Amino acid sequence: MFSAKTAVGLIRYRGPEVVGVLDSRAAGRTLGAILGIEHPAPVVASLDAGLGLAPDTLLVGIAPRGGGLPAPWRVIIVDAIEAGLDVMSGLHVFLADDPDLAARAARREVALIDLRRPPADLRLPREVRATPPHPRPFVVLTVGSDCNVGKMTAALEVVRAARAAGIAAAFGATGQTGILIAGGGIAVDRVIADFIAGATEQIIDDLGAVDWAVVEGQGSLLHPAYSGVTLGLLHGARPDAMILCHHVGRARIEGYEVPLPAPGELVRLYAEAARWVKPAPIAGFALNGHGAAPGALAEYAARVGAETGLPAVDPLADAGPLVQALRRVEQGAEPARAEETR
Amino acid sequence: MFSAKTAVGLIRYRGPEVVGVLDSRAAGRTLGAILGIEHPAPVVASLDAGLGLAPDTLLVGIAPRGGGLPAPWRVIIVDAIEAGLDVMSGLHVFLADDPDLAARAARREVALIDLRRPPADLRLPREVRATPPHPRPFVVLTVGSDCNVGKMTAALEVVRAARAAGIAAAFGATGQTGILIAGGGIAVDRVIADFIAGATEQIIDDLGAVDWAVVEGQGSLLHPAYSGVTLGLLHGARPDAMILCHHVGRARIEGYEVPLPAPGELVRLYAEAARWVKPAPIAGFALNGHGAAPGALAEYAARVGAETGLPAVDPLADAGPLVQALRRVEQGAEPARAEETR
Repeated sequence: MFSAKTAVGLIRYRGPEVVGVLDSRAAGRTLGAILGIEHPAPVVASLDAGLGLAPDTLLVGIAPRGGGLPAPWRVIIVDAIEAGLDVMSGLHVFLADDPDLAARAARREVALIDLRRPPADLRLPREVRATPPHPRPFVVLTVGSDCNVGKMTAALEVVRAARAAGIAAAFGATGQTGILIAGGGIAVDRVIADFIAGATEQIIDDLGAVDWAVVEGQGSLLHPAYSGVTLGLLHGARPDAMILCHHVGRARIEGYEVPLPAPGELVRLYAEAARWVKPAPIAGFALNGHGAAPGALAEYAARVGAETGLPAVDPLADAGPLVQALRRVEQGAEPARAEETR
Repeated sequence: MFSAKTAVGLIRYRGPEVVGVLDSRAAGRTLGAILGIEHPAPVVASLDAGLGLAPDTLLVGIAPRGGGLPAPWRVIIVDAIEAGLDVMSGLHVFLADDPDLAARAARREVALIDLRRPPADLRLPREVRATPPHPRPFVVLTVGSDCNVGKMTAALEVVRAARAAGIAAAFGATGQTGILIAGGGIAVDRVIADFIAGATEQIIDDLGAVDWAVVEGQGSLLHPAYSGVTLGLLHGARPDAMILCHHVGRARIEGYEVPLPAPGELVRLYAEAARWVKPAPIAGFALNGHGAAPGALAEYAARVGAETGLPAVDPLADAGPLVQALRRVEQGAEPARAEETR
């Protein structure tokens, strides 16, 4: 039931705070064995077993299709509240809006934190003559061939490598796991559809006066369920450059019969959609080889190079080439960006 | 304050039910003079003046940027409730969720009807092997160069002309005015962003076993604020053919510095975006010449013909050529559609 994506993100970027993982099917195994990421926290079968690890928070990291709260999890959440834990959730349904859970949390004086809850003051993107609150940063957006291919990880690793190179880079979180890691941001898939683009602009504004705003993308332009979120986010971010993320073992959109096109076609497609509002190039590919055949990543990277001439790397191994490629775009694109007033 | 778009739609398609229009700036003038559409209902300056016309419902047809309830309108709504009127609203904020308005409405036993309120059971689009509730109709989607160019009107006029030609056609409403006219549908711009495509599929399912489902599009792929809604709706509808709607006096997206491309490029752009999930051709253009220079519509239609070879007509004058063009697509595309199982 646990979403590997949320668990891996949390362990990778907030690892020291993780004391245990609750997964009844995997109890007793190591995180390295079940998630492919080393971490000493034990996997336990029940909340009771987990309480022995002295947690202060239960994170509901499941990602059921549609975002509702499965009945077995309600019981676990009630028990966690009664045991005095705060509860964080990335579900579409908000725990704090559930009268029973809210009453129990109030009585036990624990917090119910809904990571996807949008701010109350959403707005549309600024019109053309409006003034932004800061000089506009160089905006990087990670986009993808499908969901769950590594867009958040690529953004976080580009930020890390950019900072190492002396660039004041900030991460713009657009999904629940990114928000959990960054401590800010807006889940753009949870806002009212009219406000996808405006919320994205607001996320970038809220990063303050930075050199680079590196925004995690969501979904895929090819995804039958989520393409609207993807395009709204792309046009709201108005990026100066994009990083294209792909899982090298993926041949079609998960759950739908949409084949993923060749790297050159993916590049063309995202550049086309960006251009409808503001042109932006793809600077490079961030590849994810988790669970794929050995050599598959290097093979795909070679194909990217042959078809597009762009760098293609595993950002967890070294995001440096992506930062260098982005710097080249920034330097080349500077005059064009300076012309823009919006 | 009154949105001409909602007023015109209501008068055109539910005219016999309109007893008066409340617009303090235009009071005393005729609807023909202010909206360009003939109707005997008077324009009044205040609710008090309107009550003399024996209405049973106040429709809040304003469309403020962002969709909130302007303070002066709260006073009018309170007075309408106290006068025993039902109140219908197309705003993003829901009247029935306002404790004061809800308490007053309950006391006066009147209804607060929020046209944009989404159903509680939204879902994602069916996965590939799921079975639809009916044989899939021939789906037509009206798409546009910008907001407010006539997508709803084009869809309604295509339905009317198709029915006159013996086709069992139904209108799929995706916005508050369409819902008001059709008595069904979902405001896809108001649903949680993740559910845009799923809500659109649901609208088509709910039309039942029809020959043609003619769905009104929203926004534009070129719109910096709303393009996400447009693409989600396009991929959720998975149309078999599209009608491209354009206002011949429009050169750029209203409020944003995005120029509208030539007709041939508009056709290419929508066909490209559809193809990411399911290919669909543009069958023709529905043109709106309201307020434009005389001859501008004929001139643009000639340009469409020269660039694309497609028919381009004012659907209010005669939607017949669009129905004929759609029939040609339906006949030509029949084998391809029959192959699809989803």
